[in-house]
Amino acid sequence: MDLSPDWVVGFVDGEGCFYVGLYKHPEMTVGYQVLPEFRIVQHYKNINVLYSLKKFFGYGVVRKNHDDRYELRIRDINQLIVVVDFFQKHPLKTTKNVDFRKFAKVVRWMQKGKHLTIEGLEEIVKTSMEMNRQNKMSAVQILEELKRETG
Amino acid sequence: MDLSPDWVVGFVDGEGCFYVGLYKHPEMTVGYQVLPEFRIVQHYKNINVLYSLKKFFGYGVVRKNHDDRYELRIRDINQLIVVVDFFQKHPLKTTKNVDFRKFAKVVRWMQKGKHLTIEGLEEIVKTSMEMNRQNKMSAVQILEELKRETG
Repeated sequence: MDLSPDWVVGFVDGEGCFYVGLYKHPEMTVGYQVLPEFRIVQHYKNINVLYSLKKFFGYGVVRKNHDDRYELRIRDINQLIVVVDFFQKHPLKTTKNVDFRKFAKVVRWMQKGKHLTIEGLEEIVKTSMEMNRQNKMSAVQILEELKRETG
Repeated sequence: MDLSPDWVVGFVDGEGCFYVGLYKHPEMTVGYQVLPEFRIVQHYKNINVLYSLKKFFGYGVVRKNHDDRYELRIRDINQLIVVVDFFQKHPLKTTKNVDFRKFAKVVRWMQKGKHLTIEGLEEIVKTSMEMNRQNKMSAVQILEELKRETG
């Protein structure tokens, strides 16, 4: 199935998710791993659309999400740059664009290695806190921890 | 905000709902009212998109759904014909198109007054039962009742 850019924008406005995960990772210099992720979740009956979206972006993994739900997931930074480029050229029309712009900032920062310094990580955590994220508390904790380290 | 047909198809593939309600209505000859409905529900923060969709289709009512959720709803048969025409010209890409095709059948039948006869209503109820509807049981009951009347 061939998808047009406008259809993809409309569908992602409804079903897409831009998320920045923050995970404790003692082996990394800064102690935390930043994991931006673009995800579209669908019922299994629509798995074809996930494969069409994977073909459209040229990247991604279609995998099980929960129960009868599947997702297309893109995590690789260079692949996310392609996604970010696309949605900067073809802007989302819902308020999801507000989150997207923060997500895009984080992805571009990471491409430049900003997440590998404490100061850079602090800025990334702050930006990702402003997003519609569920684990806002964990981001607050991380910020406090980073402040202790730099302070 | 101007919307393109492809964006609308993508967004409705994700967020739209085609529904045929069946309600007991003793005042009507056939005893039941058929109420097809096209609906898009969004969080209040995206109410602008609902107004843009209303402008796009030329019809609809933006109203409260539940809590902080709002919906664009189209119920009028002649207005639904416009919606049906649009999605027949610009087909949905997910399995939602399966439901849509049944919905379109019901809307066109109703425009011809088919729901005003017991036989026509029976066909409408059967078609709407094949859709992803929540109240499948009530449709089964209605069918049995209609059979008693015609048998």
